[in-house]
Amino acid sequence: MIQTLQQISTIADMRVHIQEARRQGKKIGIVPTMGFLHDGHMSLAKAAREKCDLVVMSIFVNPLQFGPNEDFERYPRDIERDRELAQSGGVDLLFTPEVTEMYPKPILTNISVSNVTELLCGKSRPGHFDGVATVVTKLFQIVQPDFAFFGQKDAQQVAVVTQMVFDLSMPVQIVPCPIIREADGLAMSSRNVYLSQEERSEALVLSRSLKQAEAWLAEGVALPEIQKRMIEMISAMPLASIEYVEVLRYPDLVPVEQPIPGESIIVALAVRFGKTRLIDNLITYV
Amino acid sequence: MIQTLQQISTIADMRVHIQEARRQGKKIGIVPTMGFLHDGHMSLAKAAREKCDLVVMSIFVNPLQFGPNEDFERYPRDIERDRELAQSGGVDLLFTPEVTEMYPKPILTNISVSNVTELLCGKSRPGHFDGVATVVTKLFQIVQPDFAFFGQKDAQQVAVVTQMVFDLSMPVQIVPCPIIREADGLAMSSRNVYLSQEERSEALVLSRSLKQAEAWLAEGVALPEIQKRMIEMISAMPLASIEYVEVLRYPDLVPVEQPIPGESIIVALAVRFGKTRLIDNLITYV
Repeated sequence: MIQTLQQISTIADMRVHIQEARRQGKKIGIVPTMGFLHDGHMSLAKAAREKCDLVVMSIFVNPLQFGPNEDFERYPRDIERDRELAQSGGVDLLFTPEVTEMYPKPILTNISVSNVTELLCGKSRPGHFDGVATVVTKLFQIVQPDFAFFGQKDAQQVAVVTQMVFDLSMPVQIVPCPIIREADGLAMSSRNVYLSQEERSEALVLSRSLKQAEAWLAEGVALPEIQKRMIEMISAMPLASIEYVEVLRYPDLVPVEQPIPGESIIVALAVRFGKTRLIDNLITYV
Repeated sequence: MIQTLQQISTIADMRVHIQEARRQGKKIGIVPTMGFLHDGHMSLAKAAREKCDLVVMSIFVNPLQFGPNEDFERYPRDIERDRELAQSGGVDLLFTPEVTEMYPKPILTNISVSNVTELLCGKSRPGHFDGVATVVTKLFQIVQPDFAFFGQKDAQQVAVVTQMVFDLSMPVQIVPCPIIREADGLAMSSRNVYLSQEERSEALVLSRSLKQAEAWLAEGVALPEIQKRMIEMISAMPLASIEYVEVLRYPDLVPVEQPIPGESIIVALAVRFGKTRLIDNLITYV
């Protein structure tokens, strides 16, 4: 039997499907996305397909998580192409609500997670993770998933959602999935489409610098020194403008002088090329 | 068959019961309380019993919703008595987690609801409704109720929870239940036990002033005038210290000069007698 994707755009419709799936004892997986799908998203769908009986992918460009001067309006959208990709990726239900369906009135409820949001993107994008935590909670309430799949490219998002699920005892297991990269190393992102050829070429410094950092970590180079060397490396690119480069303990995202063996370390960066903000990271044991 | 109450103190145990109930297609109702049960709580249990197949009552004195100078420590507790009352009130599962079970580590996630928390208790107890919204969400995640029963005595709490459920599309229906009063009019509250005989006697002014307000509303007296008269009436009591007396539109809790016919109005008050803070209210159509 060929599996057929169903596209659903209202919360009420989704509830009907979820109730039926629950009644049948199906394990439900959700892959929350903002659409304009790439292989990173597809790897999440694949992981969900392997673990769950019903795979729900949401496509929702969530205005709550964009700052006033960010790219909410111009964020790339292509629902036709997304639908085909979702179908071929084994998604059962594609949830594509309009903003007015998700927020029929101005939303008065806000969810915030402290500590893990203090640095990195939490620092440079105030309110961003409140928007993420709030919409993810809302999606969880609608879809009632047993598993939720998130890409490690947004490592801080994974940390925030994991903390929230723990704190609120949400009956869902967060499944972080590895970063998927282009052949030349660039981390896949819907925003890569913004890049000019020159910017795209210079942006390879990001994954290169992370690979270097991994080697330096293995050699035992001090964390502040690694940070310094990476900043030098990236700054050498004429079009690059660094927002942050941080080496922190993972998953609590706090600065440490020198890691204790057995701890995880995240090397994380956000760099602008022209108007395009890219993030990338590497998580490793030491 | 005599129904037997089961007391459960861990989240993991509760999940086992809830999963089984869900599998059987049972309708689940929750009555969230802080214990020291009185007839107000029992009326909620009764409403839940009538509407649901599985009635869960939680007893948890939630530290998050108490301010630093409030009565968290001395809040009255009597779990033996509560268990007997819950049993006789038709409760199936009594959820009595310790603080360390609900918050094994300091909780980093906070839920806040704006607008409806600006006045009344939200103004005089900063952070209180964040604590309420957060713990109610956590209880909803653990118990996964179809219905949740709240007393209208905490009218602003009902407004906050209703707003949150709407905003986050929580799959639960909030059922507000009427205030239950002692024979002489005093609204039932676990905190009434704090009152001295003299305070208890003076506190009757609260329900009396609300009854008066209802009559004045019916006569078309202007809202600010009603507020003024109530303040005079209550201030006449030597032991009374008014925290607020407000006449607002319900359920959005905003001040209005004169209500439009068909709108609901809440007359709400918080008054201290000695160290004891009492609240009461009246909701009426005009």
